[in-house]
Amino acid sequence: MISTKAYAAMSPSTPLVPWTLERRQPGTYDVQIEILFCGVCHSDLHTAKNEWNGSIYPVVPGHEIVGKVLAVGEGVLKYQTGDLVGVGCMVDSCQHCDSCKEGLEQYCEEGSTATYNSKLRDNSGISYGGYSGMITVREDFVLRIPDNLPLEGVAPLLCAGITTYSPLRHWKAGKGMKVGVVGLGGLGHMAVKLAVAMGCEVTLISRSPSKEADMKQLGGHHFILSTDHNQMKKAKNNFDLILDTVSAIHDYNDYLHLVKRDGTMVCLGGPPTGPGIESFNLIGKRRSLAGSLIGGIAETQEMLDFCAAHQIVSEVEVIDMDYINEAYTRMLKGDVRYRFVIDMASLEK
Amino acid sequence: MISTKAYAAMSPSTPLVPWTLERRQPGTYDVQIEILFCGVCHSDLHTAKNEWNGSIYPVVPGHEIVGKVLAVGEGVLKYQTGDLVGVGCMVDSCQHCDSCKEGLEQYCEEGSTATYNSKLRDNSGISYGGYSGMITVREDFVLRIPDNLPLEGVAPLLCAGITTYSPLRHWKAGKGMKVGVVGLGGLGHMAVKLAVAMGCEVTLISRSPSKEADMKQLGGHHFILSTDHNQMKKAKNNFDLILDTVSAIHDYNDYLHLVKRDGTMVCLGGPPTGPGIESFNLIGKRRSLAGSLIGGIAETQEMLDFCAAHQIVSEVEVIDMDYINEAYTRMLKGDVRYRFVIDMASLEK
Repeated sequence: MISTKAYAAMSPSTPLVPWTLERRQPGTYDVQIEILFCGVCHSDLHTAKNEWNGSIYPVVPGHEIVGKVLAVGEGVLKYQTGDLVGVGCMVDSCQHCDSCKEGLEQYCEEGSTATYNSKLRDNSGISYGGYSGMITVREDFVLRIPDNLPLEGVAPLLCAGITTYSPLRHWKAGKGMKVGVVGLGGLGHMAVKLAVAMGCEVTLISRSPSKEADMKQLGGHHFILSTDHNQMKKAKNNFDLILDTVSAIHDYNDYLHLVKRDGTMVCLGGPPTGPGIESFNLIGKRRSLAGSLIGGIAETQEMLDFCAAHQIVSEVEVIDMDYINEAYTRMLKGDVRYRFVIDMASLEK
Repeated sequence: MISTKAYAAMSPSTPLVPWTLERRQPGTYDVQIEILFCGVCHSDLHTAKNEWNGSIYPVVPGHEIVGKVLAVGEGVLKYQTGDLVGVGCMVDSCQHCDSCKEGLEQYCEEGSTATYNSKLRDNSGISYGGYSGMITVREDFVLRIPDNLPLEGVAPLLCAGITTYSPLRHWKAGKGMKVGVVGLGGLGHMAVKLAVAMGCEVTLISRSPSKEADMKQLGGHHFILSTDHNQMKKAKNNFDLILDTVSAIHDYNDYLHLVKRDGTMVCLGGPPTGPGIESFNLIGKRRSLAGSLIGGIAETQEMLDFCAAHQIVSEVEVIDMDYINEAYTRMLKGDVRYRFVIDMASLEK
């Protein structure tokens, strides 16, 4: 085993603190990675604080990882020492169920192994995430990072990027399609950038008037203030596709009626259960309310390559590792544009 | 104008009573129809009692109409005196919006004209439905009734039939597809028959153990007792498509988790708003919750022809017109297998 410095939550109610963890030596098909940057996702905070239950302490969060290959097992074919690589929300899956065979490891029927807080498939312990100096991951779950993009801006693509890219592709976003994005946070700002790059006509729907200018800077086209009843009414039956990125409790009905006949609203944020769906909101226009979970490994690579071709990265604020607890406090206030990314060199300070 | 006998609700709280209404003389493109049978849909009761609000009294319900052509306008090309014809839930629409042009008149962007309780497009009054001896309808909204089926069993196809046929087609029901049907009432029993005829593997999900034998008689394959937690748990991730035909308030989450990855549950019953959707029920398997409203005119004709080819009719209990109030009472108790149909000859008794 190899020791590496990390930051961990030791309980739901205490701040993250420095900790040391053991990583396995790279096996035949493993890649050992020096972590350079790790994005800070809202899921990290949910898990650190046990808000989704099931947290196993210590929790080392972090699933938006970019780094450099330190060593590879002898069976590894795709990567070699020095390569720029990434790791997203998963580090393993069963590899033999229908979903895995279709390249949809995120829907693995036996359950994929999350990058942190997941039982490892060989029962050797719990997975620890990217708030650490090093990680060992099987080759099949390692992504190649394009070399033409700033690495700190690439890190959030591994979760926020793929979580919005995958539903845009699945629901066939393309030229002229009218796409609405609800919320302009980590997910929302990626949704705007990606949908614009795909040729869609993109509208941000937000309760903060200040987000209009931000959205324009990101390349978006229109803005609807969701607290303005008239603007919302005017936009009825307007969108082919809405990506709802809000993770706070809210009423889906408010946004569903903005969807055209045969259109879909996709829930990405995983909010707590809100008010019930009014059935005529679905029936009256054959609308669908759907959900989507990150993306498969092949699609994540496709997304990274798409971002390289279109020069797309996340807007980030780079922080030191010891700033993480303050970063969580600011995230809860929505005070980040649009993603904190930890510079892992700061672990050694 | 031509007088015709009818039954009408004069207020939300009084029983239906005999009434006489005036129908227009057939215009150039109109078909005048002697009504032979009219099915009794739950919507009739909702509207008679103003449960959806907006009822305009007197209300003459009935939108599952079969009859014989009495006369046609000089511009009518498809029908002639003596033809067997039907009228479903709509008698008019704008005919120029995108939905109408696509043959989806039920989603007419200006609002289709319902067979009863709708403002007529020429502002000449309110539409009155099939609980009457005669009706005048524009040719475009008249269906041809196959002559190889018992007419009383055909009447409910015009609403219960098309409401289940259309989502089966839209979500591509076919050979080997696993289809779940929630509830075995007017809609549910048609869903079972139609899905079986399309080659699907059909499971009824019901809270009444007695419905298992009934479902088997209709040709269905499997049964899940929804009150049995173990049966429901075992059926998790099982269905490509679920048609939810329940019109009483219920929790969609209970049924959503039976849907496979990328599968869809379609709400047809129009229930009052129940508990909120748990977002991970959608996200975790990329499931969709959708709705669907009857079907377009061309698709309704396709459904009638499909039923003729497969010898499919609704299971009905034929009643006299003056039994309607008792029929409503029995419907509320679920005491009908599976549709009341009024023999309109009884109006003259």
